[in-house]
Amino acid sequence: MEFFDAIKNRRSIRSYRKQDLTQDLISKLVAAARMAPSAGNAQPWAFIIAKENRTKQALAQAAYNQRWLEAASVVFVVCADMKRAEESYGERGKTLYALQDTSAAIENILLTATSLGLGGCWMGAFREEEVGKIIKAPPHMRPVALIPIGYPNESPPPRSRRPHSEVVLIESF
Amino acid sequence: MEFFDAIKNRRSIRSYRKQDLTQDLISKLVAAARMAPSAGNAQPWAFIIAKENRTKQALAQAAYNQRWLEAASVVFVVCADMKRAEESYGERGKTLYALQDTSAAIENILLTATSLGLGGCWMGAFREEEVGKIIKAPPHMRPVALIPIGYPNESPPPRSRRPHSEVVLIESF
Repeated sequence: MEFFDAIKNRRSIRSYRKQDLTQDLISKLVAAARMAPSAGNAQPWAFIIAKENRTKQALAQAAYNQRWLEAASVVFVVCADMKRAEESYGERGKTLYALQDTSAAIENILLTATSLGLGGCWMGAFREEEVGKIIKAPPHMRPVALIPIGYPNESPPPRSRRPHSEVVLIESF
Repeated sequence: MEFFDAIKNRRSIRSYRKQDLTQDLISKLVAAARMAPSAGNAQPWAFIIAKENRTKQALAQAAYNQRWLEAASVVFVVCADMKRAEESYGERGKTLYALQDTSAAIENILLTATSLGLGGCWMGAFREEEVGKIIKAPPHMRPVALIPIGYPNESPPPRSRRPHSEVVLIESF
């Protein structure tokens, strides 16, 4: 796919066909995530790849019972490594850079999924402690997003955008 | 450019040729930023496009005197709209979603720049209050990154990556 088409065609996909991702496709998504930029190249992240039904069911529950995610072929549980972030950059590392770095990795996953004919959704609303238990996360690993990925079973139209003049300013506010 | 080449070829570029971006190129970068996903489609962001030398000089100073950024053709000052984030999602909106949403927009800018033969760098280390003053930001607009963009005058090799087995786990830690 041409680069900009992935940017333009990405949607939040919440309905999936019953078709599993091959290992090759999963590997491409992981490769994209790992190539994301990070402050000082610290890479303060971990990616849990959940494929088992019972894991996906538990994650759906922790996400306020959003059961549609169970139909995804895989769910990436993206974690910010707070120990690594703090060692490199203290408080700013934990409260800003670790969140930015994992977000860059997530956007890489979502765009790459689009480019491969797959679809996913960035889920931020879930009980972090419960997700941590499901994936047996050590205390310094903070789950920051659930990213279900699968073959799209819907093709939603583009979402509306705030006016250009409201969000783009020249030189200053 | 093929989609995955942008992911693979993106580098942090800190040296730029003396050549300005056309308005068309700037518009593409802005379009990519605005197409990023955001929690509840709230789009809690603003993008200041700094092109004047005195603005770039002031930003360089606020970034602990990283004067190389003055040579960039444009500097995007990316702001998180804390009022909008809080209205939609309270504390989690301000401390997580607004940072994730702006980061997705930033990654879109950097990848799009790569796809257009441009280069940029994600700068997170700067005095936020000082940057806020330079761009006359209202109190609820938090500057979260400076993104200088220009024609690359260097071609750094890929940075090392942490081992796959350390950052990718199946089902749980």
